[in-house]
Amino acid sequence: MTQKKYFEDFEKGFRHQYQVPGLTVHEIKEFATRYDPQRFHLNEDEAKKTHFGGLVASGFQTQLKCFEPFCRQILAGTKAVGAPGIDSLKWLRPWHPGEQLDVNIVLIGKRLSSKRDDRGYLDFKLEAEAYKTMTLTMKWVVIMLTRDGNA
Amino acid sequence: MTQKKYFEDFEKGFRHQYQVPGLTVHEIKEFATRYDPQRFHLNEDEAKKTHFGGLVASGFQTQLKCFEPFCRQILAGTKAVGAPGIDSLKWLRPWHPGEQLDVNIVLIGKRLSSKRDDRGYLDFKLEAEAYKTMTLTMKWVVIMLTRDGNA
Repeated sequence: MTQKKYFEDFEKGFRHQYQVPGLTVHEIKEFATRYDPQRFHLNEDEAKKTHFGGLVASGFQTQLKCFEPFCRQILAGTKAVGAPGIDSLKWLRPWHPGEQLDVNIVLIGKRLSSKRDDRGYLDFKLEAEAYKTMTLTMKWVVIMLTRDGNA
Repeated sequence: MTQKKYFEDFEKGFRHQYQVPGLTVHEIKEFATRYDPQRFHLNEDEAKKTHFGGLVASGFQTQLKCFEPFCRQILAGTKAVGAPGIDSLKWLRPWHPGEQLDVNIVLIGKRLSSKRDDRGYLDFKLEAEAYKTMTLTMKWVVIMLTRDGNA
């Protein structure tokens, strides 16, 4: 069994990249029906009447689809214990059906907790581009146990 | 057919409240498997070993479950045309299975677009409490068409 990574195992500047496959129209409508039922996520004809010009994914679906591979490929192999929040999330352009996203995640900062010596905070920035155009950015914080404080 | 509401129809201080029913363990695991596969969202035994003390919902699931009724009850009846982003999202405590959330949404600001006279920005703040304890807060912006600019 692979050893889980601790706070100390991540250096500022750590980078992780991957592609997110384009969504189908069905996937966009299914997600929107459950979580974000607005007309430009649900109905092509209604969407064409808006400035989007056609069906686009819920911004929350874009957020989740960009986050999930990072969680599966990196976070799940660590001693991460949750997150206090998101500092900033920007939807810079809509995500249209079939567009692949190129995701780039960088560790932009890290610091030990001032209250508890068994954990620290990792500041991540995620950028997702479609055809070299920035589509979503997200800055958020992950809490991770320290090896030192959990020996 | 009910007339859609425009930017002008919302006054600063507008408030909307509702309850979000508690999640089942199955719902928490199903969401986490798709979008946020961390051990404390997927496995009771693993979750007990963390400071959570048991299974908790993905923060993204909390976010979506709190947003969805607002979208269905309010936004879907408006000329909203998307959102530029989330200014702040805080996960202040974990959401445990079966806990009902009391959600309170307030319009904390509004302004016309400086670039386009057909739309404006609405600043909303969402607060979700479980048993009178703040669980999630989110500040975000909705873009909405103006009646004046679309006459």
